[in-house]
Amino acid sequence: MLPDAADAITRDGKALILAYDHGLEHGPVDFEPNPATADPEAVFDLATHDAVTALAVQKGVAEAYYPAYEDDVTLLAKLNGTSNLWMGEPDSAVNWSVDHAAELGADAVGFTMYGGSNNEIEMAEEFRDAQEAARDNDMGVVMWSYPRGQGLKNDTSADTIAYAARLGLELGADVAKVKYPGSGDAMQHAADMAGPTRVVMSGGSKTNDRSFLETVETAVRNGADGLAVGRNVFQRDDPVGILDALEAVIFDGETAEEAVAHTSQRAVADD
Amino acid sequence: MLPDAADAITRDGKALILAYDHGLEHGPVDFEPNPATADPEAVFDLATHDAVTALAVQKGVAEAYYPAYEDDVTLLAKLNGTSNLWMGEPDSAVNWSVDHAAELGADAVGFTMYGGSNNEIEMAEEFRDAQEAARDNDMGVVMWSYPRGQGLKNDTSADTIAYAARLGLELGADVAKVKYPGSGDAMQHAADMAGPTRVVMSGGSKTNDRSFLETVETAVRNGADGLAVGRNVFQRDDPVGILDALEAVIFDGETAEEAVAHTSQRAVADD
Amino acid sequence: MLPDAADAITRDGKALILAYDHGLEHGPVDFEPNPATADPEAVFDLATHDAVTALAVQKGVAEAYYPAYEDDVTLLAKLNGTSNLWMGEPDSAVNWSVDHAAELGADAVGFTMYGGSNNEIEMAEEFRDAQEAARDNDMGVVMWSYPRGQGLKNDTSADTIAYAARLGLELGADVAKVKYPGSGDAMQHAADMAGPTRVVMSGGSKTNDRSFLETVETAVRNGADGLAVGRNVFQRDDPVGILDALEAVIFDGETAEEAVAHTSQRAVADD
Amino acid sequence: MLPDAADAITRDGKALILAYDHGLEHGPVDFEPNPATADPEAVFDLATHDAVTALAVQKGVAEAYYPAYEDDVTLLAKLNGTSNLWMGEPDSAVNWSVDHAAELGADAVGFTMYGGSNNEIEMAEEFRDAQEAARDNDMGVVMWSYPRGQGLKNDTSADTIAYAARLGLELGADVAKVKYPGSGDAMQHAADMAGPTRVVMSGGSKTNDRSFLETVETAVRNGADGLAVGRNVFQRDDPVGILDALEAVIFDGETAEEAVAHTSQRAVADD
Amino acid sequence: MLPDAADAITRDGKALILAYDHGLEHGPVDFEPNPATADPEAVFDLATHDAVTALAVQKGVAEAYYPAYEDDVTLLAKLNGTSNLWMGEPDSAVNWSVDHAAELGADAVGFTMYGGSNNEIEMAEEFRDAQEAARDNDMGVVMWSYPRGQGLKNDTSADTIAYAARLGLELGADVAKVKYPGSGDAMQHAADMAGPTRVVMSGGSKTNDRSFLETVETAVRNGADGLAVGRNVFQRDDPVGILDALEAVIFDGETAEEAVAHTSQRAVADD
Repeated sequence: MLPDAADAITRDGKALILAYDHGLEHGPVDFEPNPATADPEAVFDLATHDAVTALAVQKGVAEAYYPAYEDDVTLLAKLNGTSNLWMGEPDSAVNWSVDHAAELGADAVGFTMYGGSNNEIEMAEEFRDAQEAARDNDMGVVMWSYPRGQGLKNDTSADTIAYAARLGLELGADVAKVKYPGSGDAMQHAADMAGPTRVVMSGGSKTNDRSFLETVETAVRNGADGLAVGRNVFQRDDPVGILDALEAVIFDGETAEEAVAHTSQRAVADD
Repeated sequence: MLPDAADAITRDGKALILAYDHGLEHGPVDFEPNPATADPEAVFDLATHDAVTALAVQKGVAEAYYPAYEDDVTLLAKLNGTSNLWMGEPDSAVNWSVDHAAELGADAVGFTMYGGSNNEIEMAEEFRDAQEAARDNDMGVVMWSYPRGQGLKNDTSADTIAYAARLGLELGADVAKVKYPGSGDAMQHAADMAGPTRVVMSGGSKTNDRSFLETVETAVRNGADGLAVGRNVFQRDDPVGILDALEAVIFDGETAEEAVAHTSQRAVADD
Repeated sequence: MLPDAADAITRDGKALILAYDHGLEHGPVDFEPNPATADPEAVFDLATHDAVTALAVQKGVAEAYYPAYEDDVTLLAKLNGTSNLWMGEPDSAVNWSVDHAAELGADAVGFTMYGGSNNEIEMAEEFRDAQEAARDNDMGVVMWSYPRGQGLKNDTSADTIAYAARLGLELGADVAKVKYPGSGDAMQHAADMAGPTRVVMSGGSKTNDRSFLETVETAVRNGADGLAVGRNVFQRDDPVGILDALEAVIFDGETAEEAVAHTSQRAVADD
Repeated sequence: MLPDAADAITRDGKALILAYDHGLEHGPVDFEPNPATADPEAVFDLATHDAVTALAVQKGVAEAYYPAYEDDVTLLAKLNGTSNLWMGEPDSAVNWSVDHAAELGADAVGFTMYGGSNNEIEMAEEFRDAQEAARDNDMGVVMWSYPRGQGLKNDTSADTIAYAARLGLELGADVAKVKYPGSGDAMQHAADMAGPTRVVMSGGSKTNDRSFLETVETAVRNGADGLAVGRNVFQRDDPVGILDALEAVIFDGETAEEAVAHTSQRAVADD
Repeated sequence: MLPDAADAITRDGKALILAYDHGLEHGPVDFEPNPATADPEAVFDLATHDAVTALAVQKGVAEAYYPAYEDDVTLLAKLNGTSNLWMGEPDSAVNWSVDHAAELGADAVGFTMYGGSNNEIEMAEEFRDAQEAARDNDMGVVMWSYPRGQGLKNDTSADTIAYAARLGLELGADVAKVKYPGSGDAMQHAADMAGPTRVVMSGGSKTNDRSFLETVETAVRNGADGLAVGRNVFQRDDPVGILDALEAVIFDGETAEEAVAHTSQRAVADD
């Protein structure tokens, strides 16, 4: 963890990472709620929103679209990932070399780590290579820290999420992306365990506006440094509205109750 | 996926890839319907047909024959492949390095990816190396995207083919070769999911002229950017006739009904 | 084993290594007895104590904190380690390259070796690479020599600890960290078997002041060259007091009975 | 396959490769019929016979004897091989690097490929490295193409041998060594499938002179470009006589009936 | 096998290799019969005896002691080895790189090869790397050729030992260390099978003076080029005496009966 390494993908120390690797991880089914978002261009357009501090995509999508957006979007190169066609013990292929990502202009790299998986050892060593190559290229490092695997009974307990956050610090991530651990206290504990490594909660499956914003508010008031979100933005009818609302909560200190109006207003205006 | 990377193996953005790696993948049995095609020279001659935008072969065949055809044939270096003597979980040996293929003059590389196989992780990482080396050599990248393996129940469903096409985009292929998903709508969906990555349907086992051309017509009218075909050309008595017909359907906009006449005419003339 | 290689992490040939990789190996649960120590800064502050000859941490913690302490703390880069989320046969991921550690300013490297594990072969070969890279960088080498695994019945017997110490010598460690083998005679035997490789006992789980100091006294009077300790320092209410006492026993030749006063005095003064 | 790459190990396009790696593959038992041949010098002397176009040995034998014979023997470096002490699924260790073989003066490399083995993928990738390194050193490439393994029911059927020969062409061998498929027609089919890759039959276990020569005659009159032989030469009482006879059949167009006289004459003269 | 490569570790073509890697392979238990030999210095002193042509140790021991003895001891770097804490299928970790050994001043490398083990393939490929790196550094190569593993029924039969010796020649060892095969005839057969590769018998478990010397005499009169011995020297009360006697048998042509006097004389003088 280097104090300034995440500067390029944060604003005032906070992050709103738009994640868009679902085409690899889950397949086209994730685009069904909002079919237009199957087109990466739609999501790159969303990523130009002021609220978004970085866009996380896989190599092929970055190659095709990032050059046209390089002035308006900050690229977070998601290095590994795997289709869900495969049903084995959690693992993730390294699909993108750091050098290639640096050459394309990425400001940071993202890496999934399944602590507790039978593949944890191998993944940690792949993370080492990526982390150190990122240092050589002055890029930030984000760990998707998701304990998962046959040795693990409950992967969303407060203790497990706190451990996941700490793994980010210990192994050298500048930002750790963890699941929401269920309460503000648990969020604070996880953030404390990560020390100077920034902690962002992952957005998870789509929920309704108010519920989602309340969770985000609780998280950022309890140590989280922001959010990494995909489906809870691009699966909505009004992704710009939710980005407005998230900006209000994360960067402007509004409550969820205040912020939800941004989504309603736009929804009404668009309907 | 780089917008211009497939230019050398397409015409007007469309592709007719003649595939001839059956001697490795299936063995001599595939040459029995038309024994002359066991001789690679016969297929290189076919590949000089105007309709053919690239010829896909393994290293040994390319070494022996490509130098004599380099002015008339565009070489697509099929990097991996495996005999069917072996019965294990789907996998494919990398038989050819990108640097060696580039030195020989190949314009693009081809790579089989069995999404869903227990070897998916390893294959994806081998694909990464090949794709990035291809970029270093200004070569296009074609993915044979064939979900297959014990974790996969139905590998030709519309959803699986759409996922396969998307994998091409996400992982950085310029062209994704997928199986025909059974209908025009499904073809269109797969093509949409691949975004700017070109999608070509694979020819599959030999069928009769009209049936085959109708499928191709349906595919190219529903988003497919062409065809990668082997047995449906070289196992016929009149491979030139079917190439004439495919050119008419893919590049000249003829219907299958119109185009089938090219095959009949030649067949009659030749008999 | 090179005679002078451990000079930077010893004083008068003796070592008191403060180990702080528990956030990775055990998770946040190890910070519960003294929550302030979840903050690495608190432990770096402890490491400035005169008694501490080196601080062992993982890469991420070193990156974040060592630069501010480089004049006051000697860095021992713990290269491998693994979370206990994973339940498999003992193994340890190499999370840090020697070159990266050298660049950051580490004076020595630390490496866990699970002799007897099914992963012993692989770990020994990883140790070889680390040890030789350390030589190239003029860094000392500390082996956490912990026989463990399914082929091993009793990993704290005197014979096993003596074997563990000898492995340090044979494989090229300058310092071998072993568990306390239960008696002064057994400690002496282990130290003898290690030859010129220095042997330090590991602190293990937290015990009370007197009991802990008595064990340390027995060890250092019977061949041990010091101590590598984590929980028995930072889980106490008065970690400075125990460091004072350990300094007295290890470097100044006090008895445990004399030295325990250091902890009582401070405890009284602080209360 | 490169048209001229096998020139150094053929004469008039035909090959008589003397193979002598039995000490590794089978052990000393293969020398029992003619104990003098345990001494590699005896076999290097045989390899100076005009009929022999190349001698295939493992690294250690080549290091010790080839320098003294470099003007009179053409060296084919057999890169891989394994003892039969091991009973697992067919595999073969790569015992010799191409660069080392080139430095010693080898004109070609030999490589065993067990198509159908569970190790086929790994062996094919090792072959790739060897084949491409041979190209860098202007050396020919001979594949011992022996389908074998649990996925394979009958490894000497005509279809399997034809597939084996084709693998040589597809993967880039200049010469494919295959088992005799049982008939002239089957031999011709295998040779046809290999295209420009030369096909040599392997000698197999020792048989009587006439029977052996008749098989060789049938093979070379039906597409085979020669023979790779070990035991059927060096296990005989009169290895020079059988080499005379093989030269007559392979290079001079004699029938087996005519050629067998070479062996009888010598046998009588020697007795 | 290179004719002169073993010159540095032989005298008049004969070898007496003192092996001292038991601290790794067997642990401290092997030092119990003669506790002073746990100290490597005691064994380095023994290795200055005129009879000893090379001392085989692991890296850590060499680093610590060889520099002080470099004028008086010839170093044989035992590259691989594994503790017996581990109970799996025979295997051996490569603990020392050839380049590191060369830099330290070793004249030769030693490598254990378990033919017949399920790890034979991997070990042979590791041996290849070591052997070729030794050639690059003008170092001799000694193979500890010990058939062992689940595919092997009787690892000390004459046939197996002969095969083991032959593996040394085939794979490129200058010296093959094999177990005594039980008789002079069997020893001669093994030596014959190794051709120009020198064969040394391994000393094995400790036996009485006369019995041990008789076996050595039988071996060297039947083709063996000497002995590699550890426990049968350093576990004795009078290791110098047995070295005197071994020198007499191996280099001076004395009988065992004559030579045993060297041990008795000293034993009496010392008592």
